[in-house]
Amino acid sequence: MDSTFVVGIDVGGQTSKIGVVDARGAVLAQTVIRTDTYDKVEPYIAELAEAVKKVIKESGTEGKVRGIGVGAPNANYYTGNIENAVNLSWGSEVVEFSKLLSEAMGGLPVALTNDANAAAVGEMTYGAARGMKNFIMITLGTGVGSGIVINGNVVYGHDGFAGELGHVTAVRGNGRTCNCGKTGCLETYASATGVARTAREWLELTDEPSLLRGLETIASKDVYEAAKEGDKLALKIFEFTGKILGRSFADFVAFSSPEAIVLFGGLARAKEFLTEPIEEAMNANVLPLWRGKVKIVYSQLKESDAAILGASALAWEL
Amino acid sequence: MDSTFVVGIDVGGQTSKIGVVDARGAVLAQTVIRTDTYDKVEPYIAELAEAVKKVIKESGTEGKVRGIGVGAPNANYYTGNIENAVNLSWGSEVVEFSKLLSEAMGGLPVALTNDANAAAVGEMTYGAARGMKNFIMITLGTGVGSGIVINGNVVYGHDGFAGELGHVTAVRGNGRTCNCGKTGCLETYASATGVARTAREWLELTDEPSLLRGLETIASKDVYEAAKEGDKLALKIFEFTGKILGRSFADFVAFSSPEAIVLFGGLARAKEFLTEPIEEAMNANVLPLWRGKVKIVYSQLKESDAAILGASALAWEL
Repeated sequence: MDSTFVVGIDVGGQTSKIGVVDARGAVLAQTVIRTDTYDKVEPYIAELAEAVKKVIKESGTEGKVRGIGVGAPNANYYTGNIENAVNLSWGSEVVEFSKLLSEAMGGLPVALTNDANAAAVGEMTYGAARGMKNFIMITLGTGVGSGIVINGNVVYGHDGFAGELGHVTAVRGNGRTCNCGKTGCLETYASATGVARTAREWLELTDEPSLLRGLETIASKDVYEAAKEGDKLALKIFEFTGKILGRSFADFVAFSSPEAIVLFGGLARAKEFLTEPIEEAMNANVLPLWRGKVKIVYSQLKESDAAILGASALAWEL
Repeated sequence: MDSTFVVGIDVGGQTSKIGVVDARGAVLAQTVIRTDTYDKVEPYIAELAEAVKKVIKESGTEGKVRGIGVGAPNANYYTGNIENAVNLSWGSEVVEFSKLLSEAMGGLPVALTNDANAAAVGEMTYGAARGMKNFIMITLGTGVGSGIVINGNVVYGHDGFAGELGHVTAVRGNGRTCNCGKTGCLETYASATGVARTAREWLELTDEPSLLRGLETIASKDVYEAAKEGDKLALKIFEFTGKILGRSFADFVAFSSPEAIVLFGGLARAKEFLTEPIEEAMNANVLPLWRGKVKIVYSQLKESDAAILGASALAWEL
């Protein structure tokens, strides 16, 4: 048994989660700091480094930590930079994240990748994709992220930014406007935000009775709760969402012919409503040779640990 | 200088091209046999093996041939089989191509892959993609094929069939029927056949004057000739074709973030009419970070040699 340890950090728009992980994927100690209270990166890095030192101390692994793995939006694996991350209060420019954190940690090596790539590595190392060499991780959160694994390696592409499957065009022509400036992006339909958007649209366009009517604001969680109560409109919303996902998945299959597509994130909790329409639409849109062959599976990592585990798995390669 | 040689074979629906190639990519001798005069594979393999022996003899490389590389439709790199190739008269079932050919050649090793993958390897070894580690080869012929290279390796996927980008859905809803049984596939629009189909459709739907009117049959070559004469309808057909391609390319970029997309095949000869609409549609549909950054380039291999070179390049890895 390897007696060294790694640190995993998941940098989100609101909070950053930090944990110390052993070789079997057990999180020995963890903590959380705010990400969004800083508009400059330097004081954020200073607090982050303090928090890392604290969890290392708590877990009794001082001197035995091999490196730090970080998952963050708009992160570039090749450069170690976070570039133009509009969802990070201090991330609007190019931030030399790995360099800054490594310096603050006395030279400890830092590996950085985008959060969905980190999730893919985590799933391959500890979760639903163990033993798989070809799969696609799709994270269904506020947006839609992706981590693509081919021959056991995460695909980074020519510039380090490969795997932006939330921004393939799911609906051409009259598609919804996306934060990225394009229209019709998959994430405008198939994210938590997208589901809420569909709900608001459909409530306005139809008179259909629904438990969702009269709610002050609608989040995807409300749609999920309503669907569990058998609400027809809510069920139709998930059917639509699954269909949009499945159609895009069919194109992904034509690209890299994965063994499975692994779903992760808040919206993936609605699996009982999503799996069937996803599989139906995917199988209707792939070549006959793939029909019924590509598995839709769900993350097996505890959601509270998954982000940290995914990021930490990167650090083992350092 | 390596003093061994390889044989490249391009198996097409009508003919099979065979050539002996040296380490620098020079074709020392070549020949052609018919593919479509056989409805069983055994007599075809027997004639193919005879032809291979003939070109080896002609080129004076007897005893110095290291292996044979074959590019063929529906070919599986992992198994060496050709599976359910509807365009090959003897290919409707599973054909153990590599095994049969190797046996007929006294045990000489045979590597097999689909024709577009072979073209990608050829382009990387001898052509426009030299020095590139991340690119996508798109073959615009009777259909649309693709070979995807990530980190210097062809992507075969979980089952050996990855890279069927001709069958992503380019037009949803009311798309054209494809030979594969689906509708809206990229190749129903952006292949030589697709261009001819667009021409026939538009001639019927409009009264626009065109040099194409009155032709008995229309092939993509006629549309190209007309466009060179400045025919407005023909020019619009290429603009439409380029737009369809560029929109799909944008999704491919989101997947693997390639340095370039390399175009090859009969229809790629119309580059003076295709490049601009492709680039325009691609850049309009990618994330800002890729805008203007992904190159559209054209094969640099002589078309008569390219298929043989591509297939032969595989054999060096044997």
